Amino acid sequence: MKLVVDLMGADLGVEEVVNGVCDSFEKTKLNFILVGPKENAQRIINKRNIDHSRIEFIDTNEFIENHDDPVRSLRRKKNASLVLGLEKLNEEGDGFLSTGSTGGLLAGGIFITKRLKNVKRATLATLVPTRSGSQTILVDSGAVVDTKPEMQEQFAVMGSVVAEKYLNKKNPKVYLVNIGAEEGKGDIRTKEVYQLLKNNPNINFCGNIEPRDFLTGKADVIVADGFSGNMMIKSTEGAASVLFSEIKTAVTSSFFSKIGALLLKKSLKKIKDKYDYKKVGAGIFLGLNKPLFKAHGSSDREAIKFAIYKAEELINSNINNTIEERL
Amino acid sequence: MKLVVDLMGADLGVEEVVNGVCDSFEKTKLNFILVGPKENAQRIINKRNIDHSRIEFIDTNEFIENHDDPVRSLRRKKNASLVLGLEKLNEEGDGFLSTGSTGGLLAGGIFITKRLKNVKRATLATLVPTRSGSQTILVDSGAVVDTKPEMQEQFAVMGSVVAEKYLNKKNPKVYLVNIGAEEGKGDIRTKEVYQLLKNNPNINFCGNIEPRDFLTGKADVIVADGFSGNMMIKSTEGAASVLFSEIKTAVTSSFFSKIGALLLKKSLKKIKDKYDYKKVGAGIFLGLNKPLFKAHGSSDREAIKFAIYKAEELINSNINNTIEERL
Repeated sequence: MKLVVDLMGADLGVEEVVNGVCDSFEKTKLNFILVGPKENAQRIINKRNIDHSRIEFIDTNEFIENHDDPVRSLRRKKNASLVLGLEKLNEEGDGFLSTGSTGGLLAGGIFITKRLKNVKRATLATLVPTRSGSQTILVDSGAVVDTKPEMQEQFAVMGSVVAEKYLNKKNPKVYLVNIGAEEGKGDIRTKEVYQLLKNNPNINFCGNIEPRDFLTGKADVIVADGFSGNMMIKSTEGAASVLFSEIKTAVTSSFFSKIGALLLKKSLKKIKDKYDYKKVGAGIFLGLNKPLFKAHGSSDREAIKFAIYKAEELINSNINNTIEERL
Repeated sequence: MKLVVDLMGADLGVEEVVNGVCDSFEKTKLNFILVGPKENAQRIINKRNIDHSRIEFIDTNEFIENHDDPVRSLRRKKNASLVLGLEKLNEEGDGFLSTGSTGGLLAGGIFITKRLKNVKRATLATLVPTRSGSQTILVDSGAVVDTKPEMQEQFAVMGSVVAEKYLNKKNPKVYLVNIGAEEGKGDIRTKEVYQLLKNNPNINFCGNIEPRDFLTGKADVIVADGFSGNMMIKSTEGAASVLFSEIKTAVTSSFFSKIGALLLKKSLKKIKDKYDYKKVGAGIFLGLNKPLFKAHGSSDREAIKFAIYKAEELINSNINNTIEERL
């Protein structure tokens, strides 16, 4: 199996991604195609005592940045690591891993990797850290804005497969996000989705969930239309960021609170890291001919190594076959 | 002018509301119709050195509770304080103030108070505390779930009038909540709303705002469809509640963090109170023949007094005339 890895666009630079790939050799059986500045990458790899024949390169310095218009850049930046990498994926890869622009990845997935047969829309399943310590899959989290009920039904099925194969949850609990918990709540679309999910034999549908429970870990999979899903993520980010900024102001308000803050610093930092908005956004782009993995922009080599192991599990699990069977 | 005040359903009990009304006599010129247990209320009022002739009563012990189905209760609980109060409002009141069930108030507004001519849908404008210290008006925050673009345009106009008359903001900054900041972002409905707002001469439209900025105080008025608006409030509540619960766990994790927490307790409590979810939900139900004011369920007498002063300002400002002119 071959994983194509985009070396560009990571906050910590190319070296960190390459080191993560090398570290993964401890356990992985994957071969790699690395897309980015070859000379840099080669220099790091040469120092490592690993089987160099399992790594190929596509050399480029161009990449799609976070502020680029994703669709336009695909056409204009023909040598962007994402474009070259996804084209290679079509030819001979089994999965694609990137820490770069989410918008770029979505556009590339739609226009280069293309949809699986029978999939109405490809969807971004985002892995959300929760209070309980486990992760919840939010699907769709912003890839599809004008969502139809039948699309959301497919998101639910795909999200449930990921919860099973990627998070190793048995019979994952699937909830529909809504502004009320009881059946019959919500707008017309959400009521229609409710009925579709209730009658779908391929998921363990547990009813509506309110956004209040987004971070509690109650659900394994939360199904949303892309607009609401994205609203929920961005509202949560906003609330967290305002609260931490309030705390920062509060703790400098008196001598005693300054001392208190010093003693608490480590604990608060830990919480902040757990829910850091730069880290929300890790996910899997599903319903395409090959799975695309989005790692956090701020991933370090440890996180890259871990992402490679998880990608390998998912590739080996033949996720697309399962999705096709259950749709 | 006469304000009808619902004495029932307040977390702190009837007495607290009655005391708030009595305290307001310091400054208010309003007369009052109090709806609730007359004997209780009379006992408190008799002890106060105020002009008793300015207070009338409607005696009842029944009320619509938070867990009641709002529409059904309107029909079944004929003697509920909300029902009797809103009927009285139709006859001779100028405004209605309640700390009780929001759902009940919305249903009562629609079926008893009824819509102003030319208003497509009445809307709940919620006052949201922000980082900057000022309040932002979210409109609609959950009263209308299947929102059409023309309805949202009206919400924007009504919200802007409230920002002017109730929060005393000049030329209030109106934003449309969306999943991207640039024009052209979002789903079909939101793009349509954008154009309507952009071309409306009666508001100061400033473009899209992302939910990340919900609590920053950037906007005076945030326009949303009721589904998204409610999602945003509930996501924010959820994030705040999870973060405070994480902090609570974290601070008991070591001896030093326990000491730190003791020293910080006051500051954290202050922040928690500022964004307490029980307190979000204060608002004004707009686009009806008379304005309905929803005070926080947890309001104390001071908050009730303040709510009365603000209601008086709005009643005196003839808000409905302004709304009719600008729609």
